[in-house]
Amino acid sequence: MASVGPSSDEKNEAKEINTKRQSLVNQHSQNEHHFHKVGIPPRQKLFKEFASTFKETFFADDPLRPFKDQPQSRKLVLGIQAIFPILEWGRSYNLKKLKGDLIAGLTIASLCIPQDIGYAKLANLDPQYGLYSSFVPPLIYAFMGSSRDIAIGPVAVVSLLLGTLLQNEIDPTKNPVEYRRLAFTATFFAGITQVTLGFFRLGFLIDFLSHAAIVGFMGGAAITIALQQLKGFLGIKKFTKKTDIISVMHSVWGSVHHGWNWQTIVIGASFLAFLLFAKYIGKKNRKFFWVPAIAPLISVVLATFFVYITHAEKHGVQIVKNIEKGINPSSVKEIYFTGDYLLKGFRIGIVAGMIALTEAIAIGRTFAAMKDYQLDGNKEMVALGAMNVVGSMTSCYVATGSFSRSAVNYMAGCQTAVSNIIMSFVVFLTLEFITPLFKYTPNAILSSIIISAVIGLIDYDAAILIWKIDKLDFVACLGAFLGVIFASVEIGLLIAVAISFAKILLQVTRPRTAILGKIPRTAVYRNIQQYPDAKKVPGILIVRVDSAIYFSNSNYIKERILRWLRDEEEQLKAAYLPQPQIKSLLVEMSPVTDIDTSGIHALEELHKSLQKRDVQLVLANPGPVVIDKLHSSGFANLIGEDRIFLNVAEAVSSCSPKLVEEV
Amino acid sequence: MASVGPSSDEKNEAKEINTKRQSLVNQHSQNEHHFHKVGIPPRQKLFKEFASTFKETFFADDPLRPFKDQPQSRKLVLGIQAIFPILEWGRSYNLKKLKGDLIAGLTIASLCIPQDIGYAKLANLDPQYGLYSSFVPPLIYAFMGSSRDIAIGPVAVVSLLLGTLLQNEIDPTKNPVEYRRLAFTATFFAGITQVTLGFFRLGFLIDFLSHAAIVGFMGGAAITIALQQLKGFLGIKKFTKKTDIISVMHSVWGSVHHGWNWQTIVIGASFLAFLLFAKYIGKKNRKFFWVPAIAPLISVVLATFFVYITHAEKHGVQIVKNIEKGINPSSVKEIYFTGDYLLKGFRIGIVAGMIALTEAIAIGRTFAAMKDYQLDGNKEMVALGAMNVVGSMTSCYVATGSFSRSAVNYMAGCQTAVSNIIMSFVVFLTLEFITPLFKYTPNAILSSIIISAVIGLIDYDAAILIWKIDKLDFVACLGAFLGVIFASVEIGLLIAVAISFAKILLQVTRPRTAILGKIPRTAVYRNIQQYPDAKKVPGILIVRVDSAIYFSNSNYIKERILRWLRDEEEQLKAAYLPQPQIKSLLVEMSPVTDIDTSGIHALEELHKSLQKRDVQLVLANPGPVVIDKLHSSGFANLIGEDRIFLNVAEAVSSCSPKLVEEV
Repeated sequence: MASVGPSSDEKNEAKEINTKRQSLVNQHSQNEHHFHKVGIPPRQKLFKEFASTFKETFFADDPLRPFKDQPQSRKLVLGIQAIFPILEWGRSYNLKKLKGDLIAGLTIASLCIPQDIGYAKLANLDPQYGLYSSFVPPLIYAFMGSSRDIAIGPVAVVSLLLGTLLQNEIDPTKNPVEYRRLAFTATFFAGITQVTLGFFRLGFLIDFLSHAAIVGFMGGAAITIALQQLKGFLGIKKFTKKTDIISVMHSVWGSVHHGWNWQTIVIGASFLAFLLFAKYIGKKNRKFFWVPAIAPLISVVLATFFVYITHAEKHGVQIVKNIEKGINPSSVKEIYFTGDYLLKGFRIGIVAGMIALTEAIAIGRTFAAMKDYQLDGNKEMVALGAMNVVGSMTSCYVATGSFSRSAVNYMAGCQTAVSNIIMSFVVFLTLEFITPLFKYTPNAILSSIIISAVIGLIDYDAAILIWKIDKLDFVACLGAFLGVIFASVEIGLLIAVAISFAKILLQVTRPRTAILGKIPRTAVYRNIQQYPDAKKVPGILIVRVDSAIYFSNSNYIKERILRWLRDEEEQLKAAYLPQPQIKSLLVEMSPVTDIDTSGIHALEELHKSLQKRDVQLVLANPGPVVIDKLHSSGFANLIGEDRIFLNVAEAVSSCSPKLVEEV
Repeated sequence: MASVGPSSDEKNEAKEINTKRQSLVNQHSQNEHHFHKVGIPPRQKLFKEFASTFKETFFADDPLRPFKDQPQSRKLVLGIQAIFPILEWGRSYNLKKLKGDLIAGLTIASLCIPQDIGYAKLANLDPQYGLYSSFVPPLIYAFMGSSRDIAIGPVAVVSLLLGTLLQNEIDPTKNPVEYRRLAFTATFFAGITQVTLGFFRLGFLIDFLSHAAIVGFMGGAAITIALQQLKGFLGIKKFTKKTDIISVMHSVWGSVHHGWNWQTIVIGASFLAFLLFAKYIGKKNRKFFWVPAIAPLISVVLATFFVYITHAEKHGVQIVKNIEKGINPSSVKEIYFTGDYLLKGFRIGIVAGMIALTEAIAIGRTFAAMKDYQLDGNKEMVALGAMNVVGSMTSCYVATGSFSRSAVNYMAGCQTAVSNIIMSFVVFLTLEFITPLFKYTPNAILSSIIISAVIGLIDYDAAILIWKIDKLDFVACLGAFLGVIFASVEIGLLIAVAISFAKILLQVTRPRTAILGKIPRTAVYRNIQQYPDAKKVPGILIVRVDSAIYFSNSNYIKERILRWLRDEEEQLKAAYLPQPQIKSLLVEMSPVTDIDTSGIHALEELHKSLQKRDVQLVLANPGPVVIDKLHSSGFANLIGEDRIFLNVAEAVSSCSPKLVEEV
């Protein structure tokens, strides 16, 4: 404490006062050594300790807070409201909100209908299954979900992922019925996975897929999806089943002379230009957000009409041909509850369910932050899961929140999940009455719509920002991206997960350590690399360990500290200065939030090694958990309780009070 | 800074001085805000950044240090010495050292011979393979290894693990030849795994098995091994193949009436008593360490002689019968390099190799710390791996460092790895000349020897210490222990690894946060739970985040901080005191060693949420990496660079200089 406050740069006139004062401070500081012992928190009971860890892990968001101190009947009402939030917000629903929801609902409906038909193809399913998935799931979600802005339905990436995974098991052209049954099975288990994660409050598991990895994965998936559209866009009949860029380009160039259909290309290209132009307008002026939103439907109407009157389908332009009329048939009996396919569907369902969750939760959180309302991730998962379980029984495949449609929903002024009900109603009308009109819709137009939709998933800006902020994150991003493009969605996903985990492991195995120095005219000790004017204290090496000391890093930390000491001693020798030898090694433990048995063991070994070199081990500011364990393991006694200090300044002044004054 | 130093507890006579001084300090502190900006370290070049991360990860121990600034020829010599350390220490070898090594070598030889025969049985191999494995591997290790105290050879746990894993693939009684070939294949790949880990400096991977998990696993394995010995000990002929306690006890009690052989039990029990008594003597007085060390060999000699003269083998006492004479035959051609068994051997080899490494490295480190010499873990792995690769070609199965024999080696005064050469030589003589004498050795005596050996692996004290220090570690320990005992070694191992990883994940997903308060009469801010006399600063909520902010926890941290704020505001409301509202949220970032893109994103969202509540976000003491990223991402500009402070004290005094004085 003697060094606290300015001392060397005082004005002359203050010198006298200063000297007097200094002695006061010194006197005081000697008292203080008795006052400021490192606090040892009261020992928690074992059960309480477990309970609090459990609570922070699974109930970090304190979801039971509103239930506290309520009568039984009220708790029941609250419980039902927690499962069906519509009962809560529905009571304050009014006409003004309905207006916003109506416009938003109609807008996203016009956007989703052509997209659904295209996405169903990505999943190797007939077009109507895309529409089915935009009818039932949004309805269920509207009752159970708590996001006000998400737009539910099939999405590009999940459709592609599901299509790829299912295709590995069953050939969709040879066994369409079995393929479809497996799709429903996978959807069922995707829903079960989601409900389970939510119910057991394991939602934090999806946080293990890092933002960077998702950006790379999404970008790669978008390009893969766009490449797949070349089939419809160029009118190629024989197309590879693989999704990697090399196979696809091979397929495309191999068919350039006798596979491309110029009429198809003309239709596709002109409408793609129209769609991109509409997008551009929407981006340039936020007021015209509805232009890109309804452009796809307009394109479909115009292109269908054009093909119908010119009979272009007779010149090789491929058309949708037939979309089953009527709403979702039941598919309960089609789900495999026994046999080989049960396990396969289960596996595929877990993967698809997790990816669908990642997307939906990211959307939900983004808009909740924008409008500043609370969103319980785990409750959302239960809602999304329930909607997929019901969906799998009503001929839907995996639905989730769509990035692009949610953004349109938000911009169109949606107020509540009622916009999803409106959309669902429009899809219902479409299924009941309009599907035959899609007969002449050229496939090329669907491809154009999908291409223009997935372009938005390629987030250059995010990638550039990631590059700027964190190079390792960028490697994860690039790895996932290249994995998806050059191998497959699964490989890309695997790379993304693997790199994410590798980063966590790297973090815990190789924590940072730093040498601290005293910042002149303060009692503050900081990393000398960050603060070049910070001065080392002669005779004391101050090392800060920047992580909890666990089995995964205890050995490294011990050896790293000894290496710092060795380096320092060699430097001192090389300098030939009459510097005092290192007498104390001070470990600043502020960032050490926890220590386990291996960590204690490593400290003991460190202490032993230091003793052999005649260097004293001193600790500064161990946290509550650490000080508790230092005592219960007997380590505090081993090095002496008086070698553990409140902070670095006190420790330094105790180790060499004279030296501190000089610095 | 205004609060630095004592202010309220000054004596009256110092009041005048104090007031004058205070104004000086204040004046000074205003200057200082310009002086103590948070340091931004010079930006590192991309390559340099990667290189330094790479170096800390894989070359943390700086193994190339001695090579620096040396001429080419010297580098070559150093390189060869690095691979064969014997060339280095061999030059200073002398008679005095030889004396120590000779005694130690003879002692561990007498201990290892009976153990080897028993351990080979655990691995379902003929007795000579145990002896083979104590002949070649120790020789290789003596040339390549750098531990001076480790005793190499087959060990109980690895033998059991290998036996269990191999038995799952091939029945050793029905197909002994194929079984043996698979054993050599697994040994080969165990060696390859070890060399690979060492060569690519991935040695830190074994640190992911926590100390606690190993204690539990070893204890469980010891009990399982002891239970397996009941077969030989009781003379039971029909015995279960399973290793779990329930199957074994069922087998034992099921054969109580017509399977136990009383002569066998008498021999086994009396010698077990003798061995345990010898152990007790050795433990009581360290000088008599040689008593338990040679007791097994004495028992074997006595028991063999006894059986030979009484012809007890005709009364149902099972004997060893035949041990092949002569040294290790070549087994290069027996290793499966093609076919189905290649992959199986590979898989088993990886597991057995890793466990063998864990044991050897733990031993090496322990004794290196006791004698204070450096041990390069990665170099050790290469040596251990090379010895197993050569071993697999000379009819050995996986060898590693033995806990019990290494301890005896150390206590017998070994100086270098020459003691392993001596032991190896004695085993060679045994194989060449003495094996026929083992014909009448009763199996019961081998069982007794193994039981008395593995008892030492049950480390009660460690388990009790773990319980005291860390309850979660104890769960890992108990899980591994029960897993091994009630299921199998593999399951136990799996549980140990799973719990270890779960702990790491828990650590990174749910980091601790704490509310800080000012410790009276200091400028130190500490966790108010640890220091009950620390006082919150009115109007400012100070939260410390105790971990790097990564994708895996960024969301949790954001929401946890908001929850602290909400709780605090509710408390203030409930208190009805005329307390000022929370105006600033100060995040103490000292322990935040790194932040990634998700973390920056979370901070941005936090900032946004706080703005809506009219609370200002202030940061204190971000580290070098963090401040760099805060700037490159533009976040520092977003909240204002003047909202980032050197430490909490400065931040507080800037936020509400007046309030600080009052506290």
